[in-house]
Amino acid sequence: MKRLEGGICAVPGVSASGARKGKYGLALIAASGVAVGMFTKNKIRAAPLDVTAENLENGWLNGVIANSGCANCYTGVQGLQDAKDMARMMAALLKTDASRIGVASTGVIGRPMEMNIIESLFQEAKTRLRSSPEASQEAARAIMTTDTRVKEMAVENVGVHVAGIVKGAGMIEPNMATMLCFIYTDADLPRAELKDCLAHAVTDSFNMLTIDGDTSTNDTVLLTATGAQKCDIGAFREALNQVCTELARMMARDGEGATKYFETVITRAGSEEDARAAARSVVRSSLVKTAVYGSDPNWGRIVAAVGRSGARLEPERITLSIEGNGCEVTLVERGRIVQGVLDQAKEIMKGDSILIYVDLGLGDATARSFGCDLTPGYVDINANYTT
Amino acid sequence: MKRLEGGICAVPGVSASGARKGKYGLALIAASGVAVGMFTKNKIRAAPLDVTAENLENGWLNGVIANSGCANCYTGVQGLQDAKDMARMMAALLKTDASRIGVASTGVIGRPMEMNIIESLFQEAKTRLRSSPEASQEAARAIMTTDTRVKEMAVENVGVHVAGIVKGAGMIEPNMATMLCFIYTDADLPRAELKDCLAHAVTDSFNMLTIDGDTSTNDTVLLTATGAQKCDIGAFREALNQVCTELARMMARDGEGATKYFETVITRAGSEEDARAAARSVVRSSLVKTAVYGSDPNWGRIVAAVGRSGARLEPERITLSIEGNGCEVTLVERGRIVQGVLDQAKEIMKGDSILIYVDLGLGDATARSFGCDLTPGYVDINANYTT
Repeated sequence: MKRLEGGICAVPGVSASGARKGKYGLALIAASGVAVGMFTKNKIRAAPLDVTAENLENGWLNGVIANSGCANCYTGVQGLQDAKDMARMMAALLKTDASRIGVASTGVIGRPMEMNIIESLFQEAKTRLRSSPEASQEAARAIMTTDTRVKEMAVENVGVHVAGIVKGAGMIEPNMATMLCFIYTDADLPRAELKDCLAHAVTDSFNMLTIDGDTSTNDTVLLTATGAQKCDIGAFREALNQVCTELARMMARDGEGATKYFETVITRAGSEEDARAAARSVVRSSLVKTAVYGSDPNWGRIVAAVGRSGARLEPERITLSIEGNGCEVTLVERGRIVQGVLDQAKEIMKGDSILIYVDLGLGDATARSFGCDLTPGYVDINANYTT
Repeated sequence: MKRLEGGICAVPGVSASGARKGKYGLALIAASGVAVGMFTKNKIRAAPLDVTAENLENGWLNGVIANSGCANCYTGVQGLQDAKDMARMMAALLKTDASRIGVASTGVIGRPMEMNIIESLFQEAKTRLRSSPEASQEAARAIMTTDTRVKEMAVENVGVHVAGIVKGAGMIEPNMATMLCFIYTDADLPRAELKDCLAHAVTDSFNMLTIDGDTSTNDTVLLTATGAQKCDIGAFREALNQVCTELARMMARDGEGATKYFETVITRAGSEEDARAAARSVVRSSLVKTAVYGSDPNWGRIVAAVGRSGARLEPERITLSIEGNGCEVTLVERGRIVQGVLDQAKEIMKGDSILIYVDLGLGDATARSFGCDLTPGYVDINANYTT
């Protein structure tokens, strides 16, 4: 597998552009292909998700229009109208039907869309629609809210290209995250297989990511496959997993107020479900997150988080290690506390990227979760979001 | 129902004392009666809980010994020995058997107990065992960790006395909270009824409390009934609910780093379970908690938290109000955003005690949850807990 530059425009047949004005941003993406999507499980679901979910029933998209600044959620009939109007704008530009357009929004909940801003951003962005690395970055930047970095990833594997852009920094928790993610590929695969591949990739990436434990009303992942490239499904699956996992890591690193990134790897769990539950419990623990922030090797909090996850466990079988700064140290070995390693553990915790390994010693299931520290910066960002 | 002074010593037949040295504290409570208890559901469970749970099978306790400073959790065979030694100390003092003693611990996980400190605190505390308001406070203070205030509550209802002390400020999340709670009553009731009353009271109080979403390894609630007072079970139940609810409120107010308290009241939910799930989801949302800290009337986050709770809901039936500073304002009325009330909402959010009402408009189930804001202070307290 080869990592590529160029973001989503690394996939042949994808054009993009974006524009920003104050808190609002608008991204346009043109690419025609078989399309599948996944959406938030929150019962309060934003208007654009209803529009996009309905359009996906056709199985084909020609383009996507996505805005930041307003979630267009809890906005009633007007919100639905606004989402449809966005689809119509983009459809007119691409000379297609509005039912062939994906719409997505992110931002404050419960505020009406300022459609005059959307309209003026659209006029600006539409003249720039093109296929270039800058175009992908422009689109990725247009959907950012509290994100501080553009997040895009592209790979090529045995001839097939897969690339995605994503936004998301807060209100991030399975399922999925406060995220908009647009993935493109030239893979020539039937819709059912694309759907299955996407579901698996999301399960191991975005659904294993926690910033703050809040599930958004607007989460959207769209995958469009142009079909230009015959490919092996195994190679595609591998490439898609890689793109989704790297995008999830980028989101964790760019978590609101984050100063450090950490990953939790659960091994030898009794079941897949147990492995996932344990991995997620560690990464969402406020106490683990603050300990990571403070470089405090308070491993008891990790064990407690695994304990409360619901995963089957036997305390005397647990082995716990941490890795970072080029070192690895085992703190608990089959339930016994290893003596004389706390100083080394402190050094590891001082790094800005920490790996936590918990071996449950029960079965052969594995899971990996992605997270970041909880900092005063997170509180500052979120204490005055709408005021 | 009458509120009483005196903490647990307001119940006839209860003596207490406490001593502190650095991070360690030791509380002794003498009271003989029928006893029932509830413990953490975390699968990593501290040694004293195993000892106490076994002793409770006798159905009778003569006293309790509880320490702060070390959780005696994940401490293996030695930890179990230490917990039993604590029971033996207290039993010798009360001239009873060690199997008639409840033992509890709170503090850092994965550190061995410093039994020499426990021993010296015991020598100090045992000479002071007495029945007085100061004695109750002394015991309550001895079990504090990051708590900033003594938490005790006593009531009398139609002749029956119920009183409790509690510690807990962080690692607090159903079920139950990082809490040690010792409740006493003179009610003369059979063990099965005491157990049932306790389970109900805990469900509506400690299990509806969240500080940070972490479930502890050491949670313990013990209820001892001396049996000196014939009573009506309804009056007892009411008094017990009141004591547990007030103690839960005190814990929320004293949450680590908390500057504000808030309560969420869900009404007209489709089921009890839905009401509880929705109430808990709001109170545990980091985004709601930071908005409360920043006095930001970002009610969309409240709706989103209800949406992700799993509770059945219909967006267009939701009515949302907030109350505080002597005012109440409705922000959403049956799914429609009320215009022109945001300034008033901001004023309410500036208060240090906020009530959030969410009417789901579906059934007749109600639940109430207790929480506090998420502040830079919480992060500071927890970033360097063991270092």
